[in-house]
Amino acid sequence: MSPTTTVSNLLERNQIYSQSHTAIPTVAEIKESGRSAFKTLIISCTDGRIMPEKFLNITVPEEVLIVRNSGARARPALANLVALDDMLNVENVLVIGHTDCGARNFNEGAIRARLMKRAPEYKDEIERMQFGKILGDIEHSVRDDVEFLKGSPLLREELKKNIQGFVFDVQTGKLKEII
Amino acid sequence: MSPTTTVSNLLERNQIYSQSHTAIPTVAEIKESGRSAFKTLIISCTDGRIMPEKFLNITVPEEVLIVRNSGARARPALANLVALDDMLNVENVLVIGHTDCGARNFNEGAIRARLMKRAPEYKDEIERMQFGKILGDIEHSVRDDVEFLKGSPLLREELKKNIQGFVFDVQTGKLKEII
Repeated sequence: MSPTTTVSNLLERNQIYSQSHTAIPTVAEIKESGRSAFKTLIISCTDGRIMPEKFLNITVPEEVLIVRNSGARARPALANLVALDDMLNVENVLVIGHTDCGARNFNEGAIRARLMKRAPEYKDEIERMQFGKILGDIEHSVRDDVEFLKGSPLLREELKKNIQGFVFDVQTGKLKEII
Repeated sequence: MSPTTTVSNLLERNQIYSQSHTAIPTVAEIKESGRSAFKTLIISCTDGRIMPEKFLNITVPEEVLIVRNSGARARPALANLVALDDMLNVENVLVIGHTDCGARNFNEGAIRARLMKRAPEYKDEIERMQFGKILGDIEHSVRDDVEFLKGSPLLREELKKNIQGFVFDVQTGKLKEII
């Protein structure tokens, strides 16, 4: 059965959660401890069914950085990626698309037409907007996105050697290596 | 103790996870079932320590859509938000920043300078890049981002009534309502 997703219900759930919450180590505490943190960056999808922490069994939360956007696209993640790498020296990047991704179904023309009707004065911005649509199949999209990152002069050469692409299969729960 | 985060180790963890994976319902199956799905969109941070599914106790994964970018910023999430709303009729948007956010510490000038050294021919793109830096305190930033969304002519009027901003406290695990 679906739960009732009102904001007040979510806040009640948070209230209950907080009763057993253990303080999360601060960035300063992690640094002081000398342990490695935030070295693996994952690009994944907005789809709530897809939880990288779960299917990668991430038990130490500061192990990863997670960018989530529709379709798990690399281009809109680039600015975050370069800034996080600049601060944290990221070691691995995983682009993780998934089967049954709704971003295949975005009708960009129809979305733009509805936005134009809503806000015609924003024509230039609407035309520039990237919604994350998956063109072709997800494997092709992941490959294309990884190749984009590997080809970007904005990324550190050393990091580019450690960028890989995967597809998470919603049926089997398995990651398939694409590139 | 920190785990070893190599890609091969993550793939081993996925292999073990998949043995107890239950097939996730497809979008078509969810639609056929007639149950509500993907009505609440959360904008949260890339920081691995911050897991909205955990602190909101999301047990039905298709309950939510989650955008994650550095600083939980609204502007870079806008294109995803309008496209997802167009397809799914989103009912609630929660912008959730968090205490101890590393995006306060981005030195945008220094990042741009290093990128310019790396790829001077990308000057225009580098100048346009938004890294997600938090200006001022996180409460101010969340408020500003929610006000940006509420003021955007690109969003559906009905949806704008249901956009709220929160700060997740890493010490207490509690969400504080900001706006």
